[in-house]
Amino acid sequence: MTKLLLLTHGCWGEELIKSAELVVGEIRDAEAFALEPEDALADYMEKIRVVIEKSKGQDILLISDLNGGTTSNVAAVFSKTYENVHALCGLGMEMLIAAEELREELSGKKLAKEVLSWGREKNRDLEE
Amino acid sequence: MTKLLLLTHGCWGEELIKSAELVVGEIRDAEAFALEPEDALADYMEKIRVVIEKSKGQDILLISDLNGGTTSNVAAVFSKTYENVHALCGLGMEMLIAAEELREELSGKKLAKEVLSWGREKNRDLEE
Repeated sequence: MTKLLLLTHGCWGEELIKSAELVVGEIRDAEAFALEPEDALADYMEKIRVVIEKSKGQDILLISDLNGGTTSNVAAVFSKTYENVHALCGLGMEMLIAAEELREELSGKKLAKEVLSWGREKNRDLEE
Repeated sequence: MTKLLLLTHGCWGEELIKSAELVVGEIRDAEAFALEPEDALADYMEKIRVVIEKSKGQDILLISDLNGGTTSNVAAVFSKTYENVHALCGLGMEMLIAAEELREELSGKKLAKEVLSWGREKNRDLEE
């Protein structure tokens, strides 16, 4: 099953996992990597690289929080370096739950595509 | 200026505000309402209603985390009850920062529409 890694500015990714678990139950094999202002970029990348290197043979989906931000740049680098790593940006509860629900049946590029599409569709104006 | 209220399952909305502040600096007039498993729906709604009632004359944008979930249902009810309240779902750092950046120049329905559009566009596959 695909491993989920959330790359966020600050520690909201950890709280998002806990909050999503209130809705869908335990989310296994998901980890958040908080980039704090005091963190050196090299150290942040190294922490993620260690997890990726340990997971050879397993698919990994990185979901970062901010398009054009450091977390997305890091995610993009890893997705280009490792064949088993795919990367999206636009993290929110919809995308995390989509990834959790869909990774049972989909993987790789196909999983990433469906999670993205779910995330976009569920962003809605509630008055329409 | 439009007030931002984040309606989330669990307390990830509060952490999201703190994390977004690491990127864009202080976000004024924004508040998160965490719906916890032990909360009665009526109490949760009442806390939000009090803030809305105190803000008559000011525009309010509610952003909830989960389409079809309780937070979105609550947001939809308030947006239908109060003319100055608009509601989106699909909360993430992109949407919060979009709302923060755009509320200086836009308000009401126009603000909601642009925040939604920004959120959707910034949800991306980082390999494309």
